[in-house]
Amino acid sequence: MPDFKLNCPLPLQYQHIVMAHGGGGRLMQQLLGTVIRPAFNNPILDAQQDSAVLAINGTKLAFTTDSYVIKPLFFAGGDIGKLAVCGTLNDLAMSGAKPLYLSCALIIEEGLAIADLQRIMASMQQAAQQAGVQLVTGDTKVVEQGCGDGLYINTAGIGLIAEAVNISPARIQVGDHIIINSDLARHGMTIMLAREGIAFDSHLQSDCADVSGLVQTLLADGLDIHCMRDLTRGGLASGLIELACTSLHAFDIDETALPIHADVQSACEILGFDPWYIANEGCFVLFVPATQTEQALKWLHQHPLGQQACVIGEVKQTHPQGLVTLQTAMGISRVLDLLSGEQLPRIC
Amino acid sequence: MPDFKLNCPLPLQYQHIVMAHGGGGRLMQQLLGTVIRPAFNNPILDAQQDSAVLAINGTKLAFTTDSYVIKPLFFAGGDIGKLAVCGTLNDLAMSGAKPLYLSCALIIEEGLAIADLQRIMASMQQAAQQAGVQLVTGDTKVVEQGCGDGLYINTAGIGLIAEAVNISPARIQVGDHIIINSDLARHGMTIMLAREGIAFDSHLQSDCADVSGLVQTLLADGLDIHCMRDLTRGGLASGLIELACTSLHAFDIDETALPIHADVQSACEILGFDPWYIANEGCFVLFVPATQTEQALKWLHQHPLGQQACVIGEVKQTHPQGLVTLQTAMGISRVLDLLSGEQLPRIC
Repeated sequence: MPDFKLNCPLPLQYQHIVMAHGGGGRLMQQLLGTVIRPAFNNPILDAQQDSAVLAINGTKLAFTTDSYVIKPLFFAGGDIGKLAVCGTLNDLAMSGAKPLYLSCALIIEEGLAIADLQRIMASMQQAAQQAGVQLVTGDTKVVEQGCGDGLYINTAGIGLIAEAVNISPARIQVGDHIIINSDLARHGMTIMLAREGIAFDSHLQSDCADVSGLVQTLLADGLDIHCMRDLTRGGLASGLIELACTSLHAFDIDETALPIHADVQSACEILGFDPWYIANEGCFVLFVPATQTEQALKWLHQHPLGQQACVIGEVKQTHPQGLVTLQTAMGISRVLDLLSGEQLPRIC
Repeated sequence: MPDFKLNCPLPLQYQHIVMAHGGGGRLMQQLLGTVIRPAFNNPILDAQQDSAVLAINGTKLAFTTDSYVIKPLFFAGGDIGKLAVCGTLNDLAMSGAKPLYLSCALIIEEGLAIADLQRIMASMQQAAQQAGVQLVTGDTKVVEQGCGDGLYINTAGIGLIAEAVNISPARIQVGDHIIINSDLARHGMTIMLAREGIAFDSHLQSDCADVSGLVQTLLADGLDIHCMRDLTRGGLASGLIELACTSLHAFDIDETALPIHADVQSACEILGFDPWYIANEGCFVLFVPATQTEQALKWLHQHPLGQQACVIGEVKQTHPQGLVTLQTAMGISRVLDLLSGEQLPRIC
């Protein structure tokens, strides 16, 4: 991702890490752009995709990693184990890869109930089995009480990319339609309500799911996906802004087209959140040529994870820095900007 | 690794995780054998090698992961960044793979000095560059103060295994010589002295190093390595016991042959530690046919990381449960057993 500049007119410089450095917003981009990415400068990393795309002995592979530090460990619709499998499968899926193998590295805080660990392992196993992937290597560390928070899980994944598949921000073109597969912000709002103990009269569940099967179906059907992005930390807005900045295009998004569950909408209105900044875990955008939109929607609607799929916007033009504009329900154009951090830390 | 049974005559059952569950000893084997490994039961994981060996499109790949939670972050001879690169390169090397790509996932505790993070990133970059590997994908999470300990790093790695290479506990044979590449216990004793603030009049440094280049040289020279193991958590004793139990062989080790630095020996004697249980980070054992021993030592001595290489023991016979016996300097035979935990937690 490009090295975003702070908008603040004051010379704001951090000497120490703050929570917002992990929030998926502007401060995180700044940390990645100035401290982390320059250290490892290479073309594969610089492509800034959800997975690195590697060529080994003529075989195209996707390789990705994610640590999961979500709090609480168990939530409506899943737990840290399901999340750690689905999240990494989804990162592989976003490069068009068929996931094959996962690793699992645990950092356990002394005192974690072994029954909880067993439940989480079973949940990982179930998610892996459903996706047809094998968990083939792992690591277990234990840290003292007060040096962790129950359990952190890292999963890395390897997937196989078919020769013909080429999915990347560089392929985004003017005229492409932007499609979303499902409704927004369910994961983030579920975690927020669980963590803050807010009891809405709702059955809100995280959308935590593995979309790799859906993506493989679309590719097998012959959909020419130009680019994809799953909408985790920072939500739809951050995902789109990053893609606009990387591809140097302007995207126009229609607020009225965004599918949002009524309970999520209510919770966001009461708490004052924009649902397009809230994290998702089974929700992604696809950029497809307008000529294939109708067919894409037809295929998406046939899959349980694509039944709410709809067009939410369009790539309007090239743009020197990248730009995402939201056409609001009130008829106003609003330029979407990265938040400094995130409304809620430790969402994934 | 096999599902070790507790020797304790009392029915000792833990309901919660204790530090020893991460110590590389008996309790850790019990946790892995009863809670973690059964959940993911598959032949690749069950092979219990330092790396999983995968076949993708006819190409043999090694895949491994490790989280590094070492305390303190900086120590004589390295830091958590160098360790996170070398440790994962070594796990790839132990399956005979040439390391190609690494991932890097950070869990940063709020409050970490950004200057420290920069220093650690530079150290990772230097270690990766020296090994000729690329760090191609990553993840950054931030957790609140009191939910981490400065920085935890996970690295996963992918390496390429040449078609002819076949290194595995299953290849260990009666008569094989057991060779070690360098002196024991420097890493663990360095960390222990640093952490406890014990100032010996010594210049003890961790042996933290990447041995993958050395291993690739040995393989290129034509050495038929039957099995290898790097001697990290739990040290030489735990590594050998695991291999003996997996291969169902009895190993005889000659205590007087073990290379140990005089400063390490003194520190161990003063503090009451057995150096063969102490963690290393650039030290490994090789099992080679006795006919190749002389040649192996010659090749090892030509490399900076193999100059102290020597034969430390032999595979004596098959054994129904596996057995490691130490012939001590005093002429006594001592059966080596797994410790319950480890003398010092958070060593890697």
